[in-house]
Amino acid sequence: MLVCPAMSSFAIGVDLGGTNLRIAAVQSDGTLLEKVTTGTQVSKGRDFVIGEMCDAIKGLSAKFSSKMELEGVGIGMPGIIDKRTGMLRESPNLPGWDEYPVRDDIQKRLGAPVILENDANVAAFGEGWLGAAKGYNEICMITLGTGVGGGIVLAGKIWQGMNGMAGEVGHITVEPDGHLCGCGNRGCVEQYASATAVMRMAREEIETGTAPGLAKLADGPNIEFSARAVFNLALQGDPSAKRVYDRMGRALGILLADLVNIMNLRMYVIGGGVSNGWQAFAPKMFEELKKRSMVYAATAPPDDDYSFGASAKVESKQLPPYRTIVTRALLGSDAGLYGAARLPLAHK
Amino acid sequence: MLVCPAMSSFAIGVDLGGTNLRIAAVQSDGTLLEKVTTGTQVSKGRDFVIGEMCDAIKGLSAKFSSKMELEGVGIGMPGIIDKRTGMLRESPNLPGWDEYPVRDDIQKRLGAPVILENDANVAAFGEGWLGAAKGYNEICMITLGTGVGGGIVLAGKIWQGMNGMAGEVGHITVEPDGHLCGCGNRGCVEQYASATAVMRMAREEIETGTAPGLAKLADGPNIEFSARAVFNLALQGDPSAKRVYDRMGRALGILLADLVNIMNLRMYVIGGGVSNGWQAFAPKMFEELKKRSMVYAATAPPDDDYSFGASAKVESKQLPPYRTIVTRALLGSDAGLYGAARLPLAHK
Repeated sequence: MLVCPAMSSFAIGVDLGGTNLRIAAVQSDGTLLEKVTTGTQVSKGRDFVIGEMCDAIKGLSAKFSSKMELEGVGIGMPGIIDKRTGMLRESPNLPGWDEYPVRDDIQKRLGAPVILENDANVAAFGEGWLGAAKGYNEICMITLGTGVGGGIVLAGKIWQGMNGMAGEVGHITVEPDGHLCGCGNRGCVEQYASATAVMRMAREEIETGTAPGLAKLADGPNIEFSARAVFNLALQGDPSAKRVYDRMGRALGILLADLVNIMNLRMYVIGGGVSNGWQAFAPKMFEELKKRSMVYAATAPPDDDYSFGASAKVESKQLPPYRTIVTRALLGSDAGLYGAARLPLAHK
Repeated sequence: MLVCPAMSSFAIGVDLGGTNLRIAAVQSDGTLLEKVTTGTQVSKGRDFVIGEMCDAIKGLSAKFSSKMELEGVGIGMPGIIDKRTGMLRESPNLPGWDEYPVRDDIQKRLGAPVILENDANVAAFGEGWLGAAKGYNEICMITLGTGVGGGIVLAGKIWQGMNGMAGEVGHITVEPDGHLCGCGNRGCVEQYASATAVMRMAREEIETGTAPGLAKLADGPNIEFSARAVFNLALQGDPSAKRVYDRMGRALGILLADLVNIMNLRMYVIGGGVSNGWQAFAPKMFEELKKRSMVYAATAPPDDDYSFGASAKVESKQLPPYRTIVTRALLGSDAGLYGAARLPLAHK
């Protein structure tokens, strides 16, 4: 029997979130073999969740390891991970996991090498492998979800910083006297560009008494009052909903200008559920970015066709060499899953 | 005759500023052999300045190359340098040098390899070799002068970014609706933490009519109205002069919090002439940094003995592994000179 060498190995990627637990077997060339999704039953405790996860990993592993070699298991999880010890240092979404030797426990149960990584970092790694930043070795990813996270890839590797805390872009100051953040700072970008922030800013608009559209949305019995609903209202031209997304765009523009001025990378990717509001926040975001970063102004793509993201540009061979690309993520919630699977494959 | 191998090579470092031209021969172990300082006669034109510089380089080179091998010439200069072409892309302080093949011209005149580099980058490289960040491979340097510049060293190498524009920390937004900057942005840190900014903020204080100390300073026939004079007044307890340096400290604290949150490096060095005001701006700077960066708060040195810089800490062997150090530069205006000399030595 002929075996194609490129297809002879695979890895297991795990996206362990506070709500969902997703596990995939991915070939070394990026082909998805199988994906399993379940809920993370955090309330049943750490041992239960690790047990469920390991059972699913073993199941997938057994299914494919007769045909190809398992390179290892990569796990993306929220929080700060100490890479030396394989312990979670802080993870508000996984109570009771702090200071527990997560990696050692999972390795023992699986009998296979395990790499832990922060979830925002693996998302950046995934988009750089198979998504919007495919082929780029220097990437900064901004993840807009309940909060705002980030991951940085330099020279093709996740940039850990001194102790794995690099890429905390959600806590960059964009309004020095602005809204108080859970981190202790005022005016973090997370306070203007997360799902939580959209809802707060919408409520602030309603409180002024000049936002009938949003007020109707909040009171409507049949409509969910969500960031998506505010986005839909903004698209329909509602002034107060547009103000909310303009504030988000401004905050993201300041953040991006800071990132471009400091790091001067080729590729900035914006992902996470709230990035679906791109059409509503991108115009203001690019306006601010251009105004606030001379580095961006000197390297911006010549066309301004950003309304649907700049992903098409990524594929173009006609780009001048020095262009700063800001674009939407392509892999959605699979970015973290692919990025996690890539960890053992890239670690070889 | 015995020749010590460590002493068998040297390099020439050049610090080409808009005002001063400084040239040094430096041994591969960092020992200064000789230093020459002259004025940069910018008004006499590019060819004249390059000629003078090359003559001085040749003089120093001839003097030492009988005893040891010349590794090459490194030149730090203001502006954006295209590393591929060896051309200056933008340099407001060197009019008429833009888009000129500076490196090729100098190499032709010298018959020796020449490396060009941005002046803030070489200062970071110098402090990392022989100064406050000695022994550190990951460094961010902030240079407070007429403007605010910066340089980043990662894995022991100057981080160029995509096209040499990385490290533009002076244009990080710290007040989104603040003072208009020459770069087009509002509220860049340069508008609050440069010598120019100190003078502007002092004048703003005087205009309020509530700053008799500063007003006297500005009107005094025998006193120079300078950033240093405002600093001295702040040290004497003058409230309005203190407000000026508090504003600088706040701006630098926001900048540092952003840098720490994004890059999570071990070492941040503050240099340039205005860093002599450390005692006046550092308390507010550290206060803001701690409040605004949870990454810093989690990794700050246990003691708060920052009033004289933290350079002593750098030498300490008792540091826990994960500490973020923010400290004053040690080499003063020689940082760029040593850093430039290090370019060909490190390039080997």
